[in-house]
Amino acid sequence: MDKILHRIGIKNASLEDVYKVLTTQKGLAGWWTSDTEGEGDQVGNIIKFRFGPNGINMKVKTLQPSNLVEWEAVAGPEEWIGTTISFELKKDGDYVILLFKHLGWVEPVEFMHHCSTKWGSFMLSLKSLVETGKGQPSPDDVKIDNWN
Amino acid sequence: MDKILHRIGIKNASLEDVYKVLTTQKGLAGWWTSDTEGEGDQVGNIIKFRFGPNGINMKVKTLQPSNLVEWEAVAGPEEWIGTTISFELKKDGDYVILLFKHLGWVEPVEFMHHCSTKWGSFMLSLKSLVETGKGQPSPDDVKIDNWN
Repeated sequence: MDKILHRIGIKNASLEDVYKVLTTQKGLAGWWTSDTEGEGDQVGNIIKFRFGPNGINMKVKTLQPSNLVEWEAVAGPEEWIGTTISFELKKDGDYVILLFKHLGWVEPVEFMHHCSTKWGSFMLSLKSLVETGKGQPSPDDVKIDNWN
Repeated sequence: MDKILHRIGIKNASLEDVYKVLTTQKGLAGWWTSDTEGEGDQVGNIIKFRFGPNGINMKVKTLQPSNLVEWEAVAGPEEWIGTTISFELKKDGDYVILLFKHLGWVEPVEFMHHCSTKWGSFMLSLKSLVETGKGQPSPDDVKIDNWN
């Protein structure tokens, strides 16, 4: 199994601030995709993320306030179904450190390369949202290649 | 062994343009670090990349013009020594697709999370360099966390 990993540090933020943008409709719509339906604050909830004609549904698997959020992809691209997305938070000086993991890729296919770069870019969007109030969610996300 | 993967697409560029920024001092200094010494156009060459007080030396392992560049990290952070960095190029419509791989991580340590996000950001710097003539190499690179 292969995995995508990222690390960002959000300056002058609280663990609560970052946990909130991972668990509320408003927060998620501010960094990943404006077209987000559902709240991520209850285990078992389904959150629907849409990117134009494409989409991903995530089931909330684990919630440890100010510490850990885990989702399971339950609908979306074939390669994503059953994979786990994890956001781990901790304080380090003036920063909240977010360790991101997308676990359970069966093969390191070309689409995984694409998703890795996109996730990194969306993590920087999340950082910007918390630090400045403005992220770069889809459809205004950074375009990285011909798959968008 | 773990790996970092990325995919970018460079619009309206030729394979030769992208190969050049991977194999010349001037090109590499335009997207990764301004403090780059050495040319990457001969197998066996050592290229020295410096980031303030830190640095990495890469040995050029494989060169297939307009197709593939591979380096081996021969000096730098302990976790990098002996790892392979690979850049694979191909044409897809108006785009040159670059598949990036950093292979041979012994453990998925926190530093690997950091390097994954940094590599993604530097790939977008390379894309910008070729598309617009201006990248964001160190020391003007995107700061992602408290490790920089």
